Amino acid sequence: MTVTTKGAYEPLTESTAIKLAKELNFFKEGSLLSCHEIGDGNLNLVFHIVDENNTGIIIKQALPYAKVVGESWPLTLHRATIEGNYLKKAASLVPNLVPKVYYTNEALAITIMEDLSHLEIARSGFIKGKDYPLLSLHIGEYLAKTLFFTSDFGLNQQEKKKLQQLFVNPELCKITEDLVFTDPFFDSETNDFEPELLSSIEDLWADQTLKREVAKLKLKFLTNGEALLHGDLHTGSIFANEIDTKVIDPEFAFFGPIGFDIGQFFANILFQSLTRTSENRKMVTNHLHQAWDSFVKTFTQLWNNHSVEAFTKTPGYIEHVFSETFKSAIGFAGCEIIRRTIGLSHVADLDSIFPDEERIFIKQKALSLGKKLILKAEEIQSTTDIEKLLEQVLKEKD
Amino acid sequence: MTVTTKGAYEPLTESTAIKLAKELNFFKEGSLLSCHEIGDGNLNLVFHIVDENNTGIIIKQALPYAKVVGESWPLTLHRATIEGNYLKKAASLVPNLVPKVYYTNEALAITIMEDLSHLEIARSGFIKGKDYPLLSLHIGEYLAKTLFFTSDFGLNQQEKKKLQQLFVNPELCKITEDLVFTDPFFDSETNDFEPELLSSIEDLWADQTLKREVAKLKLKFLTNGEALLHGDLHTGSIFANEIDTKVIDPEFAFFGPIGFDIGQFFANILFQSLTRTSENRKMVTNHLHQAWDSFVKTFTQLWNNHSVEAFTKTPGYIEHVFSETFKSAIGFAGCEIIRRTIGLSHVADLDSIFPDEERIFIKQKALSLGKKLILKAEEIQSTTDIEKLLEQVLKEKD
Repeated sequence: MTVTTKGAYEPLTESTAIKLAKELNFFKEGSLLSCHEIGDGNLNLVFHIVDENNTGIIIKQALPYAKVVGESWPLTLHRATIEGNYLKKAASLVPNLVPKVYYTNEALAITIMEDLSHLEIARSGFIKGKDYPLLSLHIGEYLAKTLFFTSDFGLNQQEKKKLQQLFVNPELCKITEDLVFTDPFFDSETNDFEPELLSSIEDLWADQTLKREVAKLKLKFLTNGEALLHGDLHTGSIFANEIDTKVIDPEFAFFGPIGFDIGQFFANILFQSLTRTSENRKMVTNHLHQAWDSFVKTFTQLWNNHSVEAFTKTPGYIEHVFSETFKSAIGFAGCEIIRRTIGLSHVADLDSIFPDEERIFIKQKALSLGKKLILKAEEIQSTTDIEKLLEQVLKEKD
Repeated sequence: MTVTTKGAYEPLTESTAIKLAKELNFFKEGSLLSCHEIGDGNLNLVFHIVDENNTGIIIKQALPYAKVVGESWPLTLHRATIEGNYLKKAASLVPNLVPKVYYTNEALAITIMEDLSHLEIARSGFIKGKDYPLLSLHIGEYLAKTLFFTSDFGLNQQEKKKLQQLFVNPELCKITEDLVFTDPFFDSETNDFEPELLSSIEDLWADQTLKREVAKLKLKFLTNGEALLHGDLHTGSIFANEIDTKVIDPEFAFFGPIGFDIGQFFANILFQSLTRTSENRKMVTNHLHQAWDSFVKTFTQLWNNHSVEAFTKTPGYIEHVFSETFKSAIGFAGCEIIRRTIGLSHVADLDSIFPDEERIFIKQKALSLGKKLILKAEEIQSTTDIEKLLEQVLKEKD
């Protein structure tokens, strides 16, 4: 055992994780602890340690590399610090919607936090047909509060620039720049798709209008430091049950365009919607409406009561902000849908569909939906329009 | 004499400036040096030191406060470091268009640089009726090269994020946020204008459509980190003669929207244009066309030959970038014109007009022009359209 809180970086094992928890006095002297590594092991180690009463903690440790489809590349440990800083900031804004952080250690790249094992990853629950009726209400509130209070509307503009420096995150941003906004739109080595999709994908690669719109969205992602984003807000980053919602895994956090977090959430609701039969779809698409309505309602309250920007009193300004945010969210959702269908990193909502024929069919629909969201972002004015577009795509003959 | 290169900050005097120049061996042993402080003393000390052969250097030192219309407020010395870093970066991109930097010292907040006394400040020359035929050709090239190579189009996107950290400049940005984008549009204490203008200014304060457009421009300034801007590119920041052009004073540098530098330059050309008789106006307005054409030509060459962004090959993308940049430059120019007419900091082009009646008349025209640029930014498609608008405003009856 060499890992100590004062030591240099070394990946934890189940037994050194327990020793660390003891060293930090997370458990009473003499507790009987057990530990399981429960991460997917691609980017991070996640240790779940519990005592004999099943009271536990989570120790998350960043690995100095990323493993994706067999490949391995180096990846900054600094993302653990970004994650810790984000969770601390979020705890001050939406304490009920993030896990409590108990301890961070930059050198070891670890964050020790609240055990959320009474909750389930929303994506897994959705795939099993569950619903989380409050999920999108909470996510709307989460988005409004985290985004408003870190934007120039809700945070002193000097302070915002200082906070922004804590979240400069080039390596993780590059993953998004490449995998969300670039590779899927070119014949790139990282792409990963069923051969049956090739003809549709070639159409997509040849569609210069689509690519121009993606270029604009990528530019927005690269340049618009509007607010502190979670940066990876898909349903796999959300723990939930009937009443509770907790957002995890903010290692992609950085100052970017407000519409991005919203668009990622929309896209992941849409994946699940695509897999549902028409009778069960409404339950899922409802989260689109509820998330946006909740976001708008909370953001408007904050704008009216907590603004630090003189122009927020100007009639029509908030409507402009919502309209631009919604438009870009639609475009970002389109990119996310395309990349999770044909890019390096997939979603289980689609990949778990069998038989193959049905999966290919749904993925074709996903591609069509993603493309239309990007191309029609100006026309789509409401979440009802998104739902209409979804229904239209599902009815299309191939 | 306590100032030495190893010492703590202390404002230089003419005699300590000479000692510093000697300590740093800028002149041959035994040279007969003379020194004059030639700055306007509001923000910086500027010492011009020459030897008996009239060979010289400039020592610029930031003061820890700003003096404007009798008031004094603390202002970070870090701006000297920003200025030095910017000039070094610019030297690698447009070596012919910036003064050479010989030495910087962060603790003393000084930059020692090339003596440009063979040139004249462009604003002063313009006011005397001079022309600088190559000025805008050079400025177009300057804008294209400094902006392209620090943007995500011309600079590796990881490197750009690192460079951006060097130019986090909250205090100086705040001056622009307040004085350009906020105070002139409200009844603020910092405003400074002739009482004869009050009625027009009250109209402006009551114009909610105008304010909404200004709010959008301010938001762009606050959030769009597209490229490394000079940040204060008016004709008082440009030294010129018939053949040479040198851009100075980049202490406001930060990563912002590309259109801002262009808009500031347009606005300052427009001030001068407003003061000219119709026979002499063309000579000045020509700089609008020449600057934009030169910018577009150089930027296009760089885009075609030095791009690091996959989407730059996508048809129509560069046209989109130019169109967005132009539109925002028009809006920024409008803000600059209004704030230099009624805000805290004026321009000599307008303030030096006598008799009073004539000055008020031109300032009314300036206000009308500024307002129309902001409101019509979508319609104005070319520098010819700007010139037409200028002529229209000059013909308007009050």
